[in-house]
Amino acid sequence: MKRYRNGAIWEFENHRDGGGFEGGGVVLGLDGGTTSTVCICMPFMPSDELPNPLPILARAVAGCSNHNSVGESAARETLEQVMADALSKSGSKRSCVRAVCLAVSGVNHPTDQQRILNWLRDIFPSCVKLYVQNDSLAALASGTMGKLHGCVLIAGTGSISYGFTEDGREARAAGAGPTLGDWGSGYGISAQALTAVVRAHDGRGPQTMLTRSILNKLNLSSPDEVIGWTYADSSWARIAALVPLVVACAEAGDAVANRILLDSVQELADSVKAVVQKLGLCGEDGKDSFPLVMVGGVLEANKRWDIGKEVINCITKDYPGACPVRPKVEPAVGAALLACNIFVKESGNGLKS
Amino acid sequence: MKRYRNGAIWEFENHRDGGGFEGGGVVLGLDGGTTSTVCICMPFMPSDELPNPLPILARAVAGCSNHNSVGESAARETLEQVMADALSKSGSKRSCVRAVCLAVSGVNHPTDQQRILNWLRDIFPSCVKLYVQNDSLAALASGTMGKLHGCVLIAGTGSISYGFTEDGREARAAGAGPTLGDWGSGYGISAQALTAVVRAHDGRGPQTMLTRSILNKLNLSSPDEVIGWTYADSSWARIAALVPLVVACAEAGDAVANRILLDSVQELADSVKAVVQKLGLCGEDGKDSFPLVMVGGVLEANKRWDIGKEVINCITKDYPGACPVRPKVEPAVGAALLACNIFVKESGNGLKS
Repeated sequence: MKRYRNGAIWEFENHRDGGGFEGGGVVLGLDGGTTSTVCICMPFMPSDELPNPLPILARAVAGCSNHNSVGESAARETLEQVMADALSKSGSKRSCVRAVCLAVSGVNHPTDQQRILNWLRDIFPSCVKLYVQNDSLAALASGTMGKLHGCVLIAGTGSISYGFTEDGREARAAGAGPTLGDWGSGYGISAQALTAVVRAHDGRGPQTMLTRSILNKLNLSSPDEVIGWTYADSSWARIAALVPLVVACAEAGDAVANRILLDSVQELADSVKAVVQKLGLCGEDGKDSFPLVMVGGVLEANKRWDIGKEVINCITKDYPGACPVRPKVEPAVGAALLACNIFVKESGNGLKS
Repeated sequence: MKRYRNGAIWEFENHRDGGGFEGGGVVLGLDGGTTSTVCICMPFMPSDELPNPLPILARAVAGCSNHNSVGESAARETLEQVMADALSKSGSKRSCVRAVCLAVSGVNHPTDQQRILNWLRDIFPSCVKLYVQNDSLAALASGTMGKLHGCVLIAGTGSISYGFTEDGREARAAGAGPTLGDWGSGYGISAQALTAVVRAHDGRGPQTMLTRSILNKLNLSSPDEVIGWTYADSSWARIAALVPLVVACAEAGDAVANRILLDSVQELADSVKAVVQKLGLCGEDGKDSFPLVMVGGVLEANKRWDIGKEVINCITKDYPGACPVRPKVEPAVGAALLACNIFVKESGNGLKS
């Protein structure tokens, strides 16, 4: 490594002999979100047949590592610290690392990727394989157990569709945030519900059960107060937390809530279809099979009005080969499995990272 | 006055004898927006016939006074300072003030109003008539020259419709901010244009001229970079500044831009209609005449694709008595004229403020 950016973080390595998982080395998988960042250290496993349960050496957790939210230097500090924590807990050190897969939210463009890659290069020895991508990659890999193939739909506070092909092409749709119309997301659903309440109150839209339901939940006495409530704290997650109320109103027969959910299903399905189309994941006859990984609170609600199920119905009508998968491991584990695969692939091909 | 909240601000009064405009007293009109705050000091004019030009004694300007944006204490400091500046410049002092009309953005609820009123009460002698309202009131009064009657439509960065009747009833629609779907506003139009660019790039929406036009303007090379651009600075005004591009694309025949503007016209007209309907401004036969004051950059663009003109067409189809007015004085002057009227009315009726 060219230099130690942050000596204190890596100080633990000075008190460690050898290390690395029984000489085979380790990998790091990192899932960096807007709420928290998780880093997993696993032994390097070259085989396609993974042990069950997976051998997880260490798990470290930190706060937000999205550079758009906290700025670049805070994001880097968080990423470096959480990787050091995971290595330290696992009894390993950087010289034992074979590959690192960093899947971080806010990486939306090759320049974002390159910036983080350059910085990682300074931290790890040059033989370590490095892979930097958007955090949706970790979610995909958590459903495919490390294989980079298929499409992932994430719908929590935000929403995004991300897809990869076996020959290395990738595509995304949505994931642009509330300003840019992610209406299928938890934020989008809730913002539309709040809008419907204001419209009904203004006389610009039909009356809806959402009014009483949302006012009760927020302890407000009039729709006028909804404006102050949204201004008081603009965090997306706070708004997105209203999704269960919208689902409950739709289940109780409210037409406005029902319309909002139907629109959200359409938006989410459209974003997946755009990715499948771009990558040709469904093959030439449109019937090829591909994994469709479904992640996030909006898709996992499991209510009578089941958004996830409706989205799948909507997608399989056009693409019958879509195989819905609900991941059994967390995204950071997916990233670590991906790190193993990347090492195998790049070593085999003689590629340099 | 009960106490001097802020001695330094009012220190100038100690060096002033008498004051007040030729013994008739003065009024203060204040227009407090999210960008700036303007305070006008005018002589008290009891007559319905206003001199032309209006005698403006002083004009003072300060920054944002929206408590939602800068917090309550900063908002109060700004309001108190700008009123003191106007009085000081006019050669007057608080004991000469007959009435104050404070029209401040962010006043959305009676509790907001009461909080500011209580605080104003501490600043001014008890005989001063005080009136606190949303800043849209100042815009209405700037078109009606101080009469509280009619409807105002403001469409700049944000949008709101506000109406008053001669018997003191009021109603509003929209004005809820971007989270709550003010799609007719400058912010709304631009956010939809940015969304259309992202959708076209994703393959979720039709191709549009907006892509090249917006990327050029923002010095970006790919629609991917639009996401980073919106995150980099979430100020609404920065987004709203894209409206002229949307208008230009619509004029050049772009169907997506055209659709966005048509939707915006519908939204703006709907918000006015909701207010007119609630207040019965159009009378029982739907044909009564009322002033419709039009304010803000979105309505004043004066291009071939004229949003303001289309909005008026849309409203007058349902309410032929709507009389469009473009104000000739600034909103703070409207507030000052309103202060005169309120003094006359409340003194006449023997009402206490």
